[in-house]
Amino acid sequence: MTASVSAARSTRGKLSSTVQDQQLAEITELFQNRRKGYSLEAPFYTDPSIFKVEMEAIFGTHWLFAASVAEVPEPGDYVTLDYGPHSLIVLRNDDGGVNVLHNVCRHRGARVLTENSGSTGNLVCGYHSWTYSPEGDLIHASSPGEIDFDKNCFALKRAHGRIVAGLIFVSIAAEPPTDFDEVSKIFEPYLAPHDLGSAKVAYQQDIIEEGNWKLVMENNRECYHCDGHPELACSLFPTWGLTDELVPPHLEEVWERNKNAQSALEERCRRYSLPYEVVEELDTRIAGIRISRESLDGDGESFSADGRRLSKKLLGDLRDFRLGRCSMHLQPNSWFHFQSDHVITFAAYPINEHQTLVRTTWLVADDAVEGQDYDLEKLTYTWKQTNLQDKAFVELCQTGAGSPAYQQGPYMKSEYQVEAFINWYTQRVLEHLA
Amino acid sequence: MTASVSAARSTRGKLSSTVQDQQLAEITELFQNRRKGYSLEAPFYTDPSIFKVEMEAIFGTHWLFAASVAEVPEPGDYVTLDYGPHSLIVLRNDDGGVNVLHNVCRHRGARVLTENSGSTGNLVCGYHSWTYSPEGDLIHASSPGEIDFDKNCFALKRAHGRIVAGLIFVSIAAEPPTDFDEVSKIFEPYLAPHDLGSAKVAYQQDIIEEGNWKLVMENNRECYHCDGHPELACSLFPTWGLTDELVPPHLEEVWERNKNAQSALEERCRRYSLPYEVVEELDTRIAGIRISRESLDGDGESFSADGRRLSKKLLGDLRDFRLGRCSMHLQPNSWFHFQSDHVITFAAYPINEHQTLVRTTWLVADDAVEGQDYDLEKLTYTWKQTNLQDKAFVELCQTGAGSPAYQQGPYMKSEYQVEAFINWYTQRVLEHLA
Amino acid sequence: MTASVSAARSTRGKLSSTVQDQQLAEITELFQNRRKGYSLEAPFYTDPSIFKVEMEAIFGTHWLFAASVAEVPEPGDYVTLDYGPHSLIVLRNDDGGVNVLHNVCRHRGARVLTENSGSTGNLVCGYHSWTYSPEGDLIHASSPGEIDFDKNCFALKRAHGRIVAGLIFVSIAAEPPTDFDEVSKIFEPYLAPHDLGSAKVAYQQDIIEEGNWKLVMENNRECYHCDGHPELACSLFPTWGLTDELVPPHLEEVWERNKNAQSALEERCRRYSLPYEVVEELDTRIAGIRISRESLDGDGESFSADGRRLSKKLLGDLRDFRLGRCSMHLQPNSWFHFQSDHVITFAAYPINEHQTLVRTTWLVADDAVEGQDYDLEKLTYTWKQTNLQDKAFVELCQTGAGSPAYQQGPYMKSEYQVEAFINWYTQRVLEHLA
Repeated sequence: MTASVSAARSTRGKLSSTVQDQQLAEITELFQNRRKGYSLEAPFYTDPSIFKVEMEAIFGTHWLFAASVAEVPEPGDYVTLDYGPHSLIVLRNDDGGVNVLHNVCRHRGARVLTENSGSTGNLVCGYHSWTYSPEGDLIHASSPGEIDFDKNCFALKRAHGRIVAGLIFVSIAAEPPTDFDEVSKIFEPYLAPHDLGSAKVAYQQDIIEEGNWKLVMENNRECYHCDGHPELACSLFPTWGLTDELVPPHLEEVWERNKNAQSALEERCRRYSLPYEVVEELDTRIAGIRISRESLDGDGESFSADGRRLSKKLLGDLRDFRLGRCSMHLQPNSWFHFQSDHVITFAAYPINEHQTLVRTTWLVADDAVEGQDYDLEKLTYTWKQTNLQDKAFVELCQTGAGSPAYQQGPYMKSEYQVEAFINWYTQRVLEHLA
Repeated sequence: MTASVSAARSTRGKLSSTVQDQQLAEITELFQNRRKGYSLEAPFYTDPSIFKVEMEAIFGTHWLFAASVAEVPEPGDYVTLDYGPHSLIVLRNDDGGVNVLHNVCRHRGARVLTENSGSTGNLVCGYHSWTYSPEGDLIHASSPGEIDFDKNCFALKRAHGRIVAGLIFVSIAAEPPTDFDEVSKIFEPYLAPHDLGSAKVAYQQDIIEEGNWKLVMENNRECYHCDGHPELACSLFPTWGLTDELVPPHLEEVWERNKNAQSALEERCRRYSLPYEVVEELDTRIAGIRISRESLDGDGESFSADGRRLSKKLLGDLRDFRLGRCSMHLQPNSWFHFQSDHVITFAAYPINEHQTLVRTTWLVADDAVEGQDYDLEKLTYTWKQTNLQDKAFVELCQTGAGSPAYQQGPYMKSEYQVEAFINWYTQRVLEHLA
Repeated sequence: MTASVSAARSTRGKLSSTVQDQQLAEITELFQNRRKGYSLEAPFYTDPSIFKVEMEAIFGTHWLFAASVAEVPEPGDYVTLDYGPHSLIVLRNDDGGVNVLHNVCRHRGARVLTENSGSTGNLVCGYHSWTYSPEGDLIHASSPGEIDFDKNCFALKRAHGRIVAGLIFVSIAAEPPTDFDEVSKIFEPYLAPHDLGSAKVAYQQDIIEEGNWKLVMENNRECYHCDGHPELACSLFPTWGLTDELVPPHLEEVWERNKNAQSALEERCRRYSLPYEVVEELDTRIAGIRISRESLDGDGESFSADGRRLSKKLLGDLRDFRLGRCSMHLQPNSWFHFQSDHVITFAAYPINEHQTLVRTTWLVADDAVEGQDYDLEKLTYTWKQTNLQDKAFVELCQTGAGSPAYQQGPYMKSEYQVEAFINWYTQRVLEHLA
């Protein structure tokens, strides 16, 4: 048993909430014996003990995307964030930063905030009215006769939060990994021109996929399946992830168009001093990242049927609609598309080993007026369709992984980012178990 | 492994239906290390193995409230009672007592009675018509050619039942604890004047709370949360459980009213020779109990918005409506309010470690006519609302207990009966495991 | 741990998908200690580990009825068959036989075919378009740049299939038991005259019973409960399974009618050279079977209220409607009734230890016209009602098996086929574990 699992056991109690020693040995062996270039063995997608390990080694350790500042624009605005057994409060504070608090009352363990989002002053537990400041300090517990009761001992447990380029990240680790500082410096210049601080939420969609969160991520990290996304393929080149030698015959024409559009986009980026180069460190650092600015098909502006803008208002300081998509992938569970007219953030929050919440948020310029500057149905159409298709793909795989006939299959070359995700994941868990 | 768990294992078969040795050692340790004055560790609310231990040490051992005689007034009337993996038949017999039988056919294991309540002569299994007498003896199994078949070997398994002051109690233990005799003598004089034998059921409500049964009980054993019960607080003084030094400023006025009302009630009780003193032995004996007669606010008669009667007919031999509430708490899972105009019985029946059935029954005088002497909506309004609020509180805590950030919290002084419940529970289980 | 379970472990991965050594020892002991003449101990009906053992020892080893040829009449027609964690494709091939393939893509594990039935050329996975021939060979995976990729290594996994007298059987064992050859020769002459090859599906019903698959089978193997089937008892003599000395008084008159009808039927069978003798080898061979032709009550033709035909068209080469029912029971999970006017096939497919899919299919002559030659409601009425009643019986027993008061009960003499089923089952599992 590793020290940290052991520590978790002593604070959290034992038995079903933790992983037994022998299981941990078997799990470690599974990780050590992973076959490179192949999908994971079935238990990675179906075993509740491995899920518990992940909740500690991945989701209990790393920085996770929680929301954009547009979701909590004012002091006191909050969202609650649930994944696995955790519930967090992410609350905008007076300093422009965020307070991150575990959403568990220190009196009898009740959920303190029960809504997905809202605005609040102090935090009042609905059960016995224990009242906490926005920083989590217990400031009131009606108990006139309690002599020995020291309120200082019962603050809400705190977690880490930070804002980078308008994106809010949280970590519940005691000491979050520090190389996120470097990664922040990488992606900040790409995102800054879109100025999320002056954006607003146009729509947010939560869907529950009946599949392990890693199947959600694997699906996100390749476009080999993009024939299954006819709406998306109108604007997103389905040649994404390919190189000259990997392009299949039926995509050769698209590939030419893609290359030409990419050259034009890069020229335009240089004109506006926008970074566009591919930075790809998906499995070569702790806070794995891929970021680049890539062209879109058709008019090259946005995720529409003809590639044309979906909102008439430019974001931030941008002066041109034809900027393709600045796309970012972060390990373990988020991805983003920044266009000149709107931004989409995606995150996969595991519920358990066979269910995942996928949250998609569409952001437009603060001054864009619905029905006038953008049509909400059109704005969200392509990715709503794509999300549903992806959900179906993930669920096909989850069912398959439950079958004794399942056997690890090979990742194709165009799926190298899937392999990178799995590499990253395996390394992080093995490091944690070490 | 204790002898009794071992015995259970040998009769019930093994594997998933029982608790493994190592787990039992860990569970015992959790009980031994319980921190006094604090809520239980998370596994007590979430672990299925601890639930199995409770099903044996608590619900397989003690006397449980099953129903009032008003639910089975005539010979042959029965209710079925389900909790955990058990199903019992509680059947009124010709002698005025009750027969308690395990609701499992001795032929192929089918449920014999499938309704929640009804009236029956012999008990006929619906599968192959095996027929049992009301005492559980197998009196008919159509099997002309069965030579070696001895019907005497296949009676329905029997459990214990008794009636005290119109309340029916059952125990499935081989030898139920005997100190319930003494406890019966304690509460009988308080309840007798309400004469449940001449009452009738006005309404019964079953709700399923998504929480461990102990959270249901803990919630029942304190009024610290009574600000969350606005309807109830009209008649039940929300100062319940407080003493002079514990009253918070916002309740001082109510506290004065409470004290005055209590003095007046006690005077009235003495006039009618009704016992009203507090007997509180919640964790100092095997059949833990608290009983007293306490005043109600307003008119002091019943659980209405103004404290006035909800039924026009007095119960039993009572000659005055203004008798407040005679309230009784019994370990492990029931509580009762006896007013002059109606009675409410409550019981929490565990379904599994995270779900509990709460059954509430309203009783009025046999000659009270619905629509004339009482309005059913008004009669049940206060506690229907209160039950829904309590359900929400319990569920907030169950969710919280599943979070790794959950930590044992301190019981306030006004929650001393919660602590008493937990003390009782811990002692009983440790004795059983010893 | 047995070699085969061990092997399964090494291919399937470990942990929750397999049974631990200690559990396997306990399970083996349970099987070895089974009490003859009595129902099984509770864990056989409730324990997920025993279910896993059965998925290997019974459903992973034996021949199972999958469908009749009428469900896949043309080359390319297929059905998918799901039980436990398995999903199979059963596809009619150009040679008139069937190909049986595991329905798990070799690339990323997705289900390849997602419909219950249909018609297809090549099999194309919906995720990345990997394309397999009807024999399961991988013939296309779009991967221009994949140098080391050998398509021959990634065929769909194959299982065994065979057709006997129009019934399709499958086995996923590496080497299916061979005595099915002998059993096929036993039942073929009984079924051949009904010529399933020229029949068509009139209706198929899937119901999910909330009970262990063995309770479904036990219920099917006795008519002691037939008082619970009033519609069925109009035509099927409820004296089925009895002998002179076992007939209870209330069935004596029926018994006489049964014997007379049986004599007349046998005379008729001899006239047409149809086999009718009882062959009963339910627990005396690996592919356990019982087959016979038995009379029906009333007009003796079919399962109607008066025993009269339900379809006007005779099946196959038959020249007489009054041929009762040729009934066949096969271990582990199917049974069949062949009348002159229609055929009904039944199979129980386990979902998990407490749920079972029961599939019932009604077949009529290919040239029978609905609404003209048969009324679909009337054709299916008797067995639809009977299935619902059986579902209720099974569910009563499943609930009972979960109760600690459950104790093994004795099988009556008229339940000897239940005992034979359990004998067969126990022997097969013990052989497998040996």
